[in-house]
Amino acid sequence: MTKIGIFGADGRMGRAIAEAIIDSGAKLAGGVDRGDDAGALAGESDVLVDFSSPEALVGHLAAARSAGVPIVIGTTGLAPEHHAMIDEAATAIPILQAANTSLGVNLLAHLVRETAARLGADWDIEIVEMHHRHKADAPSGTALLLGTAAAEGRGVALEDVADRGRDGITGPRTEGDIGFAVLRGGSVAGDHQVVFAGEGERLELGHRAESRAIFAQGAVKAALWLAGQPAGRYSMADVLGLK
Amino acid sequence: MTKIGIFGADGRMGRAIAEAIIDSGAKLAGGVDRGDDAGALAGESDVLVDFSSPEALVGHLAAARSAGVPIVIGTTGLAPEHHAMIDEAATAIPILQAANTSLGVNLLAHLVRETAARLGADWDIEIVEMHHRHKADAPSGTALLLGTAAAEGRGVALEDVADRGRDGITGPRTEGDIGFAVLRGGSVAGDHQVVFAGEGERLELGHRAESRAIFAQGAVKAALWLAGQPAGRYSMADVLGLK
Amino acid sequence: MTKIGIFGADGRMGRAIAEAIIDSGAKLAGGVDRGDDAGALAGESDVLVDFSSPEALVGHLAAARSAGVPIVIGTTGLAPEHHAMIDEAATAIPILQAANTSLGVNLLAHLVRETAARLGADWDIEIVEMHHRHKADAPSGTALLLGTAAAEGRGVALEDVADRGRDGITGPRTEGDIGFAVLRGGSVAGDHQVVFAGEGERLELGHRAESRAIFAQGAVKAALWLAGQPAGRYSMADVLGLK
Amino acid sequence: MTKIGIFGADGRMGRAIAEAIIDSGAKLAGGVDRGDDAGALAGESDVLVDFSSPEALVGHLAAARSAGVPIVIGTTGLAPEHHAMIDEAATAIPILQAANTSLGVNLLAHLVRETAARLGADWDIEIVEMHHRHKADAPSGTALLLGTAAAEGRGVALEDVADRGRDGITGPRTEGDIGFAVLRGGSVAGDHQVVFAGEGERLELGHRAESRAIFAQGAVKAALWLAGQPAGRYSMADVLGLK
Repeated sequence: MTKIGIFGADGRMGRAIAEAIIDSGAKLAGGVDRGDDAGALAGESDVLVDFSSPEALVGHLAAARSAGVPIVIGTTGLAPEHHAMIDEAATAIPILQAANTSLGVNLLAHLVRETAARLGADWDIEIVEMHHRHKADAPSGTALLLGTAAAEGRGVALEDVADRGRDGITGPRTEGDIGFAVLRGGSVAGDHQVVFAGEGERLELGHRAESRAIFAQGAVKAALWLAGQPAGRYSMADVLGLK
Repeated sequence: MTKIGIFGADGRMGRAIAEAIIDSGAKLAGGVDRGDDAGALAGESDVLVDFSSPEALVGHLAAARSAGVPIVIGTTGLAPEHHAMIDEAATAIPILQAANTSLGVNLLAHLVRETAARLGADWDIEIVEMHHRHKADAPSGTALLLGTAAAEGRGVALEDVADRGRDGITGPRTEGDIGFAVLRGGSVAGDHQVVFAGEGERLELGHRAESRAIFAQGAVKAALWLAGQPAGRYSMADVLGLK
Repeated sequence: MTKIGIFGADGRMGRAIAEAIIDSGAKLAGGVDRGDDAGALAGESDVLVDFSSPEALVGHLAAARSAGVPIVIGTTGLAPEHHAMIDEAATAIPILQAANTSLGVNLLAHLVRETAARLGADWDIEIVEMHHRHKADAPSGTALLLGTAAAEGRGVALEDVADRGRDGITGPRTEGDIGFAVLRGGSVAGDHQVVFAGEGERLELGHRAESRAIFAQGAVKAALWLAGQPAGRYSMADVLGLK
Repeated sequence: MTKIGIFGADGRMGRAIAEAIIDSGAKLAGGVDRGDDAGALAGESDVLVDFSSPEALVGHLAAARSAGVPIVIGTTGLAPEHHAMIDEAATAIPILQAANTSLGVNLLAHLVRETAARLGADWDIEIVEMHHRHKADAPSGTALLLGTAAAEGRGVALEDVADRGRDGITGPRTEGDIGFAVLRGGSVAGDHQVVFAGEGERLELGHRAESRAIFAQGAVKAALWLAGQPAGRYSMADVLGLK
């Protein structure tokens, strides 16, 4: 029976993952949070799942690598240096990094990429998301994942076209921009919508998560899959057969 | 300059098409409505556009065929016998039949087909649409077009799985059904949404038309394209490069 | 400590209510389902909650009345004869009947009543709802509650203007009608939207429930409130201070 | 026949208002744009309508006051000094200032005020809007009008609680804040939604405008009403009977 260890075990996602591990029939190797011994947990686990913070991820990744244990990374808010670190570690161990582990969102990203590739630049792309009041980063990692898919479809880099935090006298919209709008409130598990706005018509492609359980179940599914893979960097598209 | 004739010229779509013809730089050959001489109009036109009624279509199709003139058919509410008649006439003249002539809706149908093919039968498919208070048929031709795309994606026939007009003690939903829900009111040009509802999450793929102008422009674009084709039956996917 | 008994204890709502009773600090007197002894449960409870079926409700109501115990009725799909029976029993015991026990939905009904009263008959009213695939009646009791609020705002009876299960050649919309559209799928706890569609603009007033927990919590809140009231028929508006 | 003059006549709204004046049976006194003679137009008009810019408004207001002619102000992006100027001029002439002249939006503001007053601070308020790609200010004047209504319902000042342009590491949401999210794209005439997000449920109150015509018709209706009033400052609620 596969033993799964959790980094960030005391957070909302950490607790949902512990439940999902038990529901899946796998074994919970244990969980650690800030200050606890990451190395000991890595030594006891067949595969690790990380939903902590970008700062904590550094130590967790080192522990996973030392122990030679695969790791699923669901932490959001990663900067380019974190991605470089993941790429480097993935030469030694299997790593799956995903801003969102649900089937629906990853399929949505696929549809967004394809739609952006087929529609001309006279269709404006906007991404709007809503999450619960406790979420600390904006836009969500999933909104950025969708924005990246749209940018890939157009053959541009998201950082060159992202328009975030629109406020004040903005002037007319710049052609080719991908806009982001953020709502926070209540206990919303995560709603995302990508709007393609043309002259006289709109396409709206969206996803609603009813609870964190779908992300936790997806993360456990990814962990069980990753446990049997060779070293390398993977995504949910590999697990879900979306490639 | 291509001369375009309109069947159903006095309806809302007929008038929008007359405007779109003028905007496009083509020439309006004329328009007829119930009781008028369809044969005379066909004789004066390079290509015809029909937004009339299933009953009137029969005579219009005969007139187009006699005159050897291509025809775009946007009339909705067609029964299997109308489609058989179109197939037969398409052996002699070019015919493009479309429940919806906008780029956005036809791209949406493509995304719906692909999504239905990738998601299992444990994802329920529902289609909801809203149109203005004058619309006389339900669900809309576009909703049925989207339902057909979903059924194709699943490899089933829509008539075997369509669940229309849900009301009363229905019992639990039948797995594999494709449900339709219809709203009517105000001056809504046409909103459609296809919902894929799984356990704990939903994908929502939708389209909003702001005015009839987009359908009229699409129909004129289709007519100009069709004028240069050999006999055969075509769809908007041919015009829009979605195949 | 107030002892609460559950009729329909084995259903989805019954189980959610059992959890909500425990969370609230009240005591679960017990629960019965089809075939069990309703009278015994009534005798052991300070207040009863019924989420069973219209058929089962008859016996449950008789048991509550015999025992002189207040009862909250959340069962939907009630016919006029059930309401007559409730009215009659409410001369002897306190009864609160509610198609929906959430604060949000009951406030929405209030807003819908007011909006319908202020807008003329040239604004069409449509109600659309979505629930999980297991729901057996359509439209939902909550959709009918909202429709009743709209009809009250206009000073008409819902049964005279309800347009349900729209399908086929319907002809143009009848002025003054209130339309209902129904979606079923996945695990949706309950989404409702009331659309007021005028010439060129729409008002959309909606509610989304994330889980059954809010209904269960509302039902327990109603039960605790009802336990201290004199005989009579009550609604959630009494509990929530919306009158 | 009432003669109506337009300030900002060459803009999108200016042209829509010219059409609406003709449709209403009133008389178009003329229109001026940047650099034209505001005083001459004021002298020839019975009532003025301004959809220009905050900068241009200053001169237009002076011209209206010199001529003693009532003025409807639909220009958005006004700063506190503009409002002070309007208040001062309203001691001499009738002035109606409105961020949005549609019946639907003004009724929505009324519902939002009432809802905010009834729900506790544990319900988070978020406002999201979408407009066409040419709009130069964010959030829209209408979104701010709705935010003001929500703040009034809670008994606070909007400027003390507005959270605009959310982006980056924001930390958890501050209780009592009213958030704004902005989408821009295509030809959207104006969509607004106010979300009240509680624990486990959401109320969503929204408005969709299909075209600028409804705003233009509302502005002309306001102008005809204002022409017969004494000096003072008025709002659409006065015209629409929403007080």
